[in-house]
Amino acid sequence: MRVLITGGAGFLGRKLAAALLREGALALDGGAPQPIEQITLFDAVPAADLPDDRVETVTADITDRGVLDRLTAGADLVWHLAAVVSAAAEADFDLGYRVNVDGTRLLLEAMRATGRRGRIVFASSLAVYGGDMPAVITDDFQATPQTSYGTHKAIGELLLADHSRKGHVDGRSLRLPTIVVRSGTPNKAASTFASSIIREPLAGRETVCPVPPDTAVYILSPRQVVASLLRAMLLPERSWPASRTLLLPGITVSVADMVSALARAAGTDVADRIRWQPEPDIQRIVDGWPVRAEALRARGLGFTDDGSFDDILRAFIDDDLGGTIPSQPNGR
Amino acid sequence: MRVLITGGAGFLGRKLAAALLREGALALDGGAPQPIEQITLFDAVPAADLPDDRVETVTADITDRGVLDRLTAGADLVWHLAAVVSAAAEADFDLGYRVNVDGTRLLLEAMRATGRRGRIVFASSLAVYGGDMPAVITDDFQATPQTSYGTHKAIGELLLADHSRKGHVDGRSLRLPTIVVRSGTPNKAASTFASSIIREPLAGRETVCPVPPDTAVYILSPRQVVASLLRAMLLPERSWPASRTLLLPGITVSVADMVSALARAAGTDVADRIRWQPEPDIQRIVDGWPVRAEALRARGLGFTDDGSFDDILRAFIDDDLGGTIPSQPNGR
Repeated sequence: MRVLITGGAGFLGRKLAAALLREGALALDGGAPQPIEQITLFDAVPAADLPDDRVETVTADITDRGVLDRLTAGADLVWHLAAVVSAAAEADFDLGYRVNVDGTRLLLEAMRATGRRGRIVFASSLAVYGGDMPAVITDDFQATPQTSYGTHKAIGELLLADHSRKGHVDGRSLRLPTIVVRSGTPNKAASTFASSIIREPLAGRETVCPVPPDTAVYILSPRQVVASLLRAMLLPERSWPASRTLLLPGITVSVADMVSALARAAGTDVADRIRWQPEPDIQRIVDGWPVRAEALRARGLGFTDDGSFDDILRAFIDDDLGGTIPSQPNGR
Repeated sequence: MRVLITGGAGFLGRKLAAALLREGALALDGGAPQPIEQITLFDAVPAADLPDDRVETVTADITDRGVLDRLTAGADLVWHLAAVVSAAAEADFDLGYRVNVDGTRLLLEAMRATGRRGRIVFASSLAVYGGDMPAVITDDFQATPQTSYGTHKAIGELLLADHSRKGHVDGRSLRLPTIVVRSGTPNKAASTFASSIIREPLAGRETVCPVPPDTAVYILSPRQVVASLLRAMLLPERSWPASRTLLLPGITVSVADMVSALARAAGTDVADRIRWQPEPDIQRIVDGWPVRAEALRARGLGFTDDGSFDDILRAFIDDDLGGTIPSQPNGR
């Protein structure tokens, strides 16, 4: 199998690639495992080298149709993760549309042009929801996004579904909860604080939380997101609804819950590295996201949440900090 | 007020223009009536002349940004009706995307570039619904279209909402039921039969019905559609939900009900001019559309249905046949 990952230089793309290298083979539709021969990490910025012969990196703009034609011609499976993230898309309207809408459409057109009906998993987002919402989002509730990013993801789902229906691709979209704890550095997603308030204090750094402690978030760990992205690729096509889209399970926690878990695991002096500094622009975006969802359809197909925030914190320490909480500069 | 109507050469565009000329003035937001100074009928095909000094016609491609810039610069109000219709969009994937998606996006970009936050009413469609649906569609039910046309309309709604939220336009989308009875000639909409089976026999012509008599349709008369398009433009912005989209009320009738009403009004020999000849491609599209909807939000804002199919038939005879059923060639 030859794999293409757009957004391959990103945090999630690298995690997914690492998981694929560990797996070594993929069993599509419950069939025999087929070895992964090649993973192409495609991104607008250079991807850090993964020390593996099976990995190649390609740096180009996602609206470069020539590059897309070449890459899709050489790919059996595509994970489409590339996106201008929420706050960035809100700040630069044109860039967001160019990358998130035009990029997705061109990628699908390139796959269509191969004539091979490639399989593609699209990272959509709970940001497709917005406006008046029930307390708990159900599988059939409408997507009425209140951000440009959410709009782009909703359009991407529609494009994937239409190209799938027409037989151009075999598309599968996942509406991802907020991913916590992200490794690396803060990005321009409005949700980046939800990871920063854990990751930065654990690294001995101060960080700013732009929303109040009672803010609720609907989250999934990177470990579970990667498992879900894999599962979405392996499931038989008949498992998918006509919309080609699944709302993923997550857990609902408050920022205060998260900080308490951090204090329990690493001490209150670590948790005290969070400064509380309201940012209305971020607050407005975050307030527009749903905080509870049922996700029965995805649960029925074996997608799962993390159980608790303590589990999410443990997964971060295991996967990204080598299994131990770093010794703390100021005396712990 | 200067008005731009895209799709202005079409059946609905002409009806809307005629209604605007009759009204002579528009009272936006419940304010004082302002005279209509100019109506531009913009279409890819030449619009028939309306004998009125206030009307101009422009024939150009809707993806011609230069034309769009010029037209939007000279318009206070825009009704965006232009579209490649359902069966045509299904038959020519690229044409459908170019006109319906690119055209809508370019129109919104042109309006944005004027810096005047123009008001735009977009003719969306119940074709945005598809796949697994409840017996009755409610206002918050998700749009998961199963045709390219429905996909385009759903994308158009999302674009209008996002441009509205960003302050580029003041956008309002209406999800229209199937429009019956259309005047003129059959078009490439999958729903065209629902008008043809009434209009053609009344004109003394045979016609083909491609679906069985028990097929249910959710319909609205041209008269009510035009009234709804007007109302959507006049309502204050605060009336609209965050999605900027309203599902319109209609009535649910079977094809058999329609034919019975025709026979009652014009005689069985007229109704006998319908030949029943199943067309699976049409049937598949029509079967995917919802047949019942609640539309509580729109009803609360004063949008109404026609009451009964007899009323719809009467409106057609009054508005399009000069108030009388034509004498029938074969002896009536």
